[in-house]
Amino acid sequence: MAKGNINVSVENIFPLIKKFLYSDHEIFLRELISNGTDATLKLKHLTSIGESKSEYGNPIIEVKIDKEGKKLHIIDQGLGMTADEVEKYINQVAFSGAEEFLDQYKDSAKDSGIIGHFGLGFYSAFMVAEKVEIITKSHKEGTTAAHWTCDGSPEFTLEPHDKTDRGTEIILHIAEDSTEFLEEARISSLLYKYNKFMPIPIKFGTKEVNDPDHKPETTTDAEGKETTEPQKKITVDNIINNPNPAWTKQPTELESDDYNNFYRELYPSQFEDPLFHIHLNVDYPFNLTGILYFPKMTQDMAMQKDKIQLYQNQVYVTDNVEGIVPEFLTMLRGVIDSPDIPLNVSRSYLQADGAVKKISSYITRKVADKLKSLFNNNREEFEAKWNDIKIVIEYGMLSEDKFFDKADAFALYPTVDGKYYTYDELYNAIKAKQTDKDNKLVILYTSNQEEQHSYIEAAKDKGYQVLLLDSPIVSHLMQKLESTKENITFSRVDADSIDKLIAKDETVISKLDEDQTKALDALLKDVIPSEKFMVQLEPMDSNATPFMITQPEFMRRMKEMQASGGGGGMQMFGNMPEMYNLVVNTNSDLVNEILNTEAKDKQAHLITQSLDLARLSQGLLKGKELSDFIKRSYELLK
Amino acid sequence: MAKGNINVSVENIFPLIKKFLYSDHEIFLRELISNGTDATLKLKHLTSIGESKSEYGNPIIEVKIDKEGKKLHIIDQGLGMTADEVEKYINQVAFSGAEEFLDQYKDSAKDSGIIGHFGLGFYSAFMVAEKVEIITKSHKEGTTAAHWTCDGSPEFTLEPHDKTDRGTEIILHIAEDSTEFLEEARISSLLYKYNKFMPIPIKFGTKEVNDPDHKPETTTDAEGKETTEPQKKITVDNIINNPNPAWTKQPTELESDDYNNFYRELYPSQFEDPLFHIHLNVDYPFNLTGILYFPKMTQDMAMQKDKIQLYQNQVYVTDNVEGIVPEFLTMLRGVIDSPDIPLNVSRSYLQADGAVKKISSYITRKVADKLKSLFNNNREEFEAKWNDIKIVIEYGMLSEDKFFDKADAFALYPTVDGKYYTYDELYNAIKAKQTDKDNKLVILYTSNQEEQHSYIEAAKDKGYQVLLLDSPIVSHLMQKLESTKENITFSRVDADSIDKLIAKDETVISKLDEDQTKALDALLKDVIPSEKFMVQLEPMDSNATPFMITQPEFMRRMKEMQASGGGGGMQMFGNMPEMYNLVVNTNSDLVNEILNTEAKDKQAHLITQSLDLARLSQGLLKGKELSDFIKRSYELLK
Repeated sequence: MAKGNINVSVENIFPLIKKFLYSDHEIFLRELISNGTDATLKLKHLTSIGESKSEYGNPIIEVKIDKEGKKLHIIDQGLGMTADEVEKYINQVAFSGAEEFLDQYKDSAKDSGIIGHFGLGFYSAFMVAEKVEIITKSHKEGTTAAHWTCDGSPEFTLEPHDKTDRGTEIILHIAEDSTEFLEEARISSLLYKYNKFMPIPIKFGTKEVNDPDHKPETTTDAEGKETTEPQKKITVDNIINNPNPAWTKQPTELESDDYNNFYRELYPSQFEDPLFHIHLNVDYPFNLTGILYFPKMTQDMAMQKDKIQLYQNQVYVTDNVEGIVPEFLTMLRGVIDSPDIPLNVSRSYLQADGAVKKISSYITRKVADKLKSLFNNNREEFEAKWNDIKIVIEYGMLSEDKFFDKADAFALYPTVDGKYYTYDELYNAIKAKQTDKDNKLVILYTSNQEEQHSYIEAAKDKGYQVLLLDSPIVSHLMQKLESTKENITFSRVDADSIDKLIAKDETVISKLDEDQTKALDALLKDVIPSEKFMVQLEPMDSNATPFMITQPEFMRRMKEMQASGGGGGMQMFGNMPEMYNLVVNTNSDLVNEILNTEAKDKQAHLITQSLDLARLSQGLLKGKELSDFIKRSYELLK
Repeated sequence: MAKGNINVSVENIFPLIKKFLYSDHEIFLRELISNGTDATLKLKHLTSIGESKSEYGNPIIEVKIDKEGKKLHIIDQGLGMTADEVEKYINQVAFSGAEEFLDQYKDSAKDSGIIGHFGLGFYSAFMVAEKVEIITKSHKEGTTAAHWTCDGSPEFTLEPHDKTDRGTEIILHIAEDSTEFLEEARISSLLYKYNKFMPIPIKFGTKEVNDPDHKPETTTDAEGKETTEPQKKITVDNIINNPNPAWTKQPTELESDDYNNFYRELYPSQFEDPLFHIHLNVDYPFNLTGILYFPKMTQDMAMQKDKIQLYQNQVYVTDNVEGIVPEFLTMLRGVIDSPDIPLNVSRSYLQADGAVKKISSYITRKVADKLKSLFNNNREEFEAKWNDIKIVIEYGMLSEDKFFDKADAFALYPTVDGKYYTYDELYNAIKAKQTDKDNKLVILYTSNQEEQHSYIEAAKDKGYQVLLLDSPIVSHLMQKLESTKENITFSRVDADSIDKLIAKDETVISKLDEDQTKALDALLKDVIPSEKFMVQLEPMDSNATPFMITQPEFMRRMKEMQASGGGGGMQMFGNMPEMYNLVVNTNSDLVNEILNTEAKDKQAHLITQSLDLARLSQGLLKGKELSDFIKRSYELLK
């Protein structure tokens, strides 16, 4: 049996990196700036524990484009390297400097949050550069600067350099196929995307600002005319990042305005303030900070996703938080920063990962707690915001049972009259009037106050409360509530005639005898198309609407659930035709009029016009039929 | 100056691969099966040119799960390797076997389409395995099989093996964090995703089928009762792929049914046939094959994207074809197979790449040509499909000028009466009647036949043609046509009163004198809310509608364009209130009636009811106002 070591063929390491290391080449800039940041934070740590004699000062990282020379410079003022260290860290590919550093200063480094995730990142430079130079001077006293160059072949050169200030300068000679990275706008947008909140200030060019030490003087000339001298301008570094973003601070350090300002920093094109925020801050059993915001929601849930940004130690990673944040909370916005989320793993591994599961349920709990406390502390404000947050809460109640249990205390059920009940309050408010003869509580609702106006009025006249439930997924939520709570049922106001909507042990006596009823039935069936409407004769209050169209709750709701994405079982309902009943009030004056009219054509006209009015009230009169109705009605006016 | 070679630290090569090589670990299976496929195709090539004495036969690739042993096997019957070749190809990481093979057999190999894109892929095995074995026997006569093992450290063992059949078996000892890859369902779905159309048959398990050689016999017993013996079953290989997918064949080999069957192979959950297909096949200046399908479109364009699959030599790469297929064609479905599309490059590089630009405009041209020939060859069918394909064509006309020029010949403009005009036909059909007094052609349209029914009828009564233009982006297209064609304008049927919609040099004389007109104006202004409607008195045909609500074209269209995603300039229109005019026909009988009614309250009632009827006709009567109208109308019936 032969034994041996796998020999990595160095001629091919650069093509390998170039082709496969990252599918997105732009990542190189994030990697190099991360390295510079690590080198600076390491120096900070060493000076703080007395291991470096260097003066830490206020180091920055500078990014410079040399368009003519086709070069991009990344300059830090961190640890720097001696020639020996270049040998060790750069010439030995895949030897992670951060790891060794961590080994050496393990305990003290842990606290200062220096964890090198991107140790291999330096070589990503070769994805965009045909040649790379490093000019570096160590913080250690009495060392000489080193100058390393490599053209992408494994051959490098290393020689002394006269650089005198501490730190590392990386010079990328940008390759022909990557000249986009010599464009100021491109680099600027990359810095904005990946480095917006990195902990060391990043300079990219300069800008002119008013000189703060200069107050322009105003002089008055002989004629009394005032002249103000021009404001002096000074040129300052253009720092593109905010090294101390809100989420790295303690909640106690921040005012409500600070949270709103940070929201606008994250989403500059967003005009509206968020509704409220949730500050996440946990050390154990995992490390996570962040701020989540409830934005104003629109009906279109899909549009709202992918707005939460994931960071690791203030370095932007992704805006795809699927699997980390529970599905129903991906509609929120904000930032999550955690070094404990594994990167570059398969989606299914991520979902099975213990730490990620804990993170996900921690976030759910924090959101529920925040909502609970908002509800308890300022119910009026909570009610005012309900319409904007209900989609998230309702979706959460449907998808996470733990959230359902918590949300039961603060989920609101608004009425058409602007009252907001919790479930328990609703129950107590309506149980006297809205319990039917089988002892079932009937919760009435409308999905559209405008469209179902006449039905709502009829219910209110009976002393019933009508909820306004209009989110796209509310039919699923009703289904869930009906199966969770005992002996209740939801019914839309137009599901049946008002007397049957909540059936009581009362009977209304019909003014019509059996013969009259039969005659009416025959008359109606002559005019009303039976394939569209099932005629129901009902004795009702004589003031109730004479003709009325209803649509049974069950079928309508199944169709709705199917349309808004119900499971396979409901597919069959989607294809069924709409079913409508025409309820005719046998005690109404109009029915009396129809029966007492002798002329056949006048009878038919009365029935047609009444049916059209009933259809109008359900939004069912359209196109030619509506035009004909309007024409007939103009005739009636003359 | 020192010189030297970068030393790749082998201890870290496996973590590197594991962490960074691919962000998605599942890719390992595609890589290993690609290697097996390459090895088989290479053998085929060598036997065909007489360089191998081996019997090619009907080789397959087998994938086997050993759940108890926690192993996954991938077995091919290809070239195989000698111990020396294992040394060379496996132990030297990043030494691409395919490249050397290509160098050696360049010219003959080129034709047979063997290009190893995934040469480095073998090492991806270590993303999911803690130990990997290779058992391999070369096709070369008189060689001994070799057995290689490596546990992820760079140390390997290599020893002889007693394997006698040609080919390579890879055994993955699946790591603890990757046990998902021991699940049959997981492997099955991966094979389906990546290997569905690879050119060598892939076996995954077996299945029972009816024995084709066995016809069950039916015997009749003494009582005349028939008994049929059970069908014999045989066990056969479960081949999961189709090695000869439709796009690899010539269009002449395929019938219309073949294309539809392949569509269902690609989208098994799709019930409907595609509308038509476009077979792509080009060798120069780039290599590309594929089939694109026009599916039935829905209104929701976003839902339809990401359905085109990109392959390279029958290996699935991605379903994100952004940048390769022009934006407006990403709504299509199907397959594109091209080795000339660079992978793993940045999006902006891809878009600047010459070959990709050529591919994109080739696809656009082929689609335009196909549509043109469908239109020319079977106009009736083309018209029948127009409603389903118009979104793609209209979007293409808006976004690609070259497509606009071509589409002008076949883009259709349907009328409410079911006629379909090309632009030129439309022009000729309407120019006599629909040219206004300023010599401008006015093209009338409706966005909704039901809602604008009465307006459409009024236009048709005048002998005008009314187009039905109801796609979501049609307002943008009208804008483009108005600026491209000369002296034309689009106007929705409810944009003005019928006489002003297309202004002619005719005047209708009013029946009212000046005093009566003033009196009418005063009466109307008492009842009609001026903040909602601008009242316009107009002498019209006495049979025309007495009251009518119109909405000026310009403002409405700007608002629509803004809503469907217009540029920044239109933002201002979105926030403007809706503007409506109330046109009152001074020659109508009803106006006469209003003027001649003495009782103030009766007058007001007539005006209110008329205004409500006009609002009904525009869909503007809702909620309480509709309920009140209905109540009043029931009263009128009595």
